Amino acid sequence: MNVNGKHRRTIWLHESNPAIVQIIEQRFLPYRFVIEDLKTVEDVAVAIKDMHVRGAGLIGATAGFGMYLAALSAPRTSMQAFMADLKNAGDRLRATRPTAVNLEWAVKRQLAAIEQAGPDIEVMIETALHVAQTIADEDAEYCRRLGEHGKAIIKEISAKKGGAPVNVLTHCNAGWLAFVDYGSATAPIYAAHDDGIDVHVWVDETRPRNQGARLTAWELGQHGVPHTVIADNVGGHLMQHGQVDMVIVGTDRTLYTGDVANKIGTYLKALAAHDNGVPFYVALPSSSFDWEKRDGVKDIPIEQRDATEVKYMQGLHNDEIVEVLLTPENSAVANYAFDVTPARLVTGLITERGICPASEAGVLALFPEKRNNPQESK
Amino acid sequence: MNVNGKHRRTIWLHESNPAIVQIIEQRFLPYRFVIEDLKTVEDVAVAIKDMHVRGAGLIGATAGFGMYLAALSAPRTSMQAFMADLKNAGDRLRATRPTAVNLEWAVKRQLAAIEQAGPDIEVMIETALHVAQTIADEDAEYCRRLGEHGKAIIKEISAKKGGAPVNVLTHCNAGWLAFVDYGSATAPIYAAHDDGIDVHVWVDETRPRNQGARLTAWELGQHGVPHTVIADNVGGHLMQHGQVDMVIVGTDRTLYTGDVANKIGTYLKALAAHDNGVPFYVALPSSSFDWEKRDGVKDIPIEQRDATEVKYMQGLHNDEIVEVLLTPENSAVANYAFDVTPARLVTGLITERGICPASEAGVLALFPEKRNNPQESK
Repeated sequence: MNVNGKHRRTIWLHESNPAIVQIIEQRFLPYRFVIEDLKTVEDVAVAIKDMHVRGAGLIGATAGFGMYLAALSAPRTSMQAFMADLKNAGDRLRATRPTAVNLEWAVKRQLAAIEQAGPDIEVMIETALHVAQTIADEDAEYCRRLGEHGKAIIKEISAKKGGAPVNVLTHCNAGWLAFVDYGSATAPIYAAHDDGIDVHVWVDETRPRNQGARLTAWELGQHGVPHTVIADNVGGHLMQHGQVDMVIVGTDRTLYTGDVANKIGTYLKALAAHDNGVPFYVALPSSSFDWEKRDGVKDIPIEQRDATEVKYMQGLHNDEIVEVLLTPENSAVANYAFDVTPARLVTGLITERGICPASEAGVLALFPEKRNNPQESK
Repeated sequence: MNVNGKHRRTIWLHESNPAIVQIIEQRFLPYRFVIEDLKTVEDVAVAIKDMHVRGAGLIGATAGFGMYLAALSAPRTSMQAFMADLKNAGDRLRATRPTAVNLEWAVKRQLAAIEQAGPDIEVMIETALHVAQTIADEDAEYCRRLGEHGKAIIKEISAKKGGAPVNVLTHCNAGWLAFVDYGSATAPIYAAHDDGIDVHVWVDETRPRNQGARLTAWELGQHGVPHTVIADNVGGHLMQHGQVDMVIVGTDRTLYTGDVANKIGTYLKALAAHDNGVPFYVALPSSSFDWEKRDGVKDIPIEQRDATEVKYMQGLHNDEIVEVLLTPENSAVANYAFDVTPARLVTGLITERGICPASEAGVLALFPEKRNNPQESK
């Protein structure tokens, strides 16, 4: 999407130097737009681990490019030595975010494709670049497609409202900054906006890491989409007063039964949407489906992150990014990162194939290849 | 309750100078414990408007003392001139927080009592002081009593759990810092804790002003009550996993039909409590009842506060209290201060007279003097 009027992705090959991969260094947003050069697999590992990049799709794409950079510097003495080095690189990348499904998947896909392309090392390197670009392109294309499907819902609401602004509430950042382009929750919004439909977005701040206030607000602003930042507490009130036409959120993991794990607080918005008859959609590329687990609340482990994320808040003070203490020095703090929204509260899932009910029947109707035995076909 | 081991109230007459009212200047908590001198009605107006003091009970008590300070400086040329000045002072105070029912009530009570005490100006001033102190004493006594009633619920849960810690979730600060002493939502907690019952409190951070993280955590810590600060997004997840035994919140205004206006985000916690079978109580001295309005969502006007409260966050950095920017400079921000929790989501109201269902029948059974015509008996 656009940054300062120029189209950008979150990761790309350097225009004139194909030994450099460039990313948007997201830790400085929304205050500074910084582009970082990644030259080695170690640069990539640090970028993933320290969250210069984040989001399922973007982590996968970054790992893909990381394997390409690894291939560039691997010893060319023999195919065995070359592949051994790449496998080490893959292990290094995997260790940065052990729970990131897309990371694991990208590394595996690269290793298989590169090995297959041997024994000519030059061809293997070309393959690594091709696969990295393909992973990125596919990610963007899936998001673009789900955006088109989601746009239809916004268009319908817009028509019902006689063209008055469609108010969409979103939580966290499931925007293009979490993918390569378009985003998941934001893809329908960008598609509608680019199509001339009047859309306005309520952006949940998303404590404790403020991905909404920092990232979603920034990317919507850069692309020219009207939006308003609100505290996480506000959505219910807005829904009670008819100020939200629909909710669209992303997901870290959605079970094929329709239960949705997403950023902590999503469940509360789903309850409010349900209580007020507001449609609640989850947008996801199908790579975010979990085809094994059945019961989200019981079976999905919820990560607890460091207490300092709640105790301190990062922001801009005198043009410097600083952290301020929010609580009494000695108060205990708990920091659960995700929650699970039961399928019964979800109106529908927006995927690259179309929209389906958040139920086993609904998901399997859209992904019939998983139908016979979802638990074994992963 | 206790601060550094010493018993304190939130407002009191200066020990040696009866022309000075002292308050805990709450904007510096939890970092610094500051006592502020109030000498004029304008000092009081600023203290209320800029939230040096906040909370229904404390705003009422502060307004009561404000009318006393106004009486001290009003022209003594005639009773008419004196009363005219006091009425102006009352209007000035009322304008600071238009939705604060206790403020309106304290001003009215003072004006009526002072006028009644005339025409001797000295007697009128003495009356103003007496009424101010009575309002403060009554506030503390009502909170103490409702604490005793609420303690019974905690005691029962504790017994059912075989003495394991009772986990109470609370939102915002309906603690003693919001009243003169004890608090409303916290009164049952302090009463239980002081009685040796094992209680642990989940403290909602309460964005955007962080009254939970700053004030509730501080006062619970000072009084020695175990507690854990959480982001506002977390409560639903905790309830899904059986980690909350009950919710107790305060209220800015509760209709006699049971609808509850309280800090923004309360409604979301009530929905989660309802969805998980967790009892949801609202604690209030009966002065917070609104005996006129019937439909909370439709009839209670919701204050919108300044956008900077969401855009910037206050915290401690290098031992200084500073504000940091959280959002893109140009993003729009909305800041709704309260929401309404419909009576159907409220398990019961804890008042100084006892506990009643959140319904017209329940409230009127406990306050039978309002029974014949609640709309005219205010």
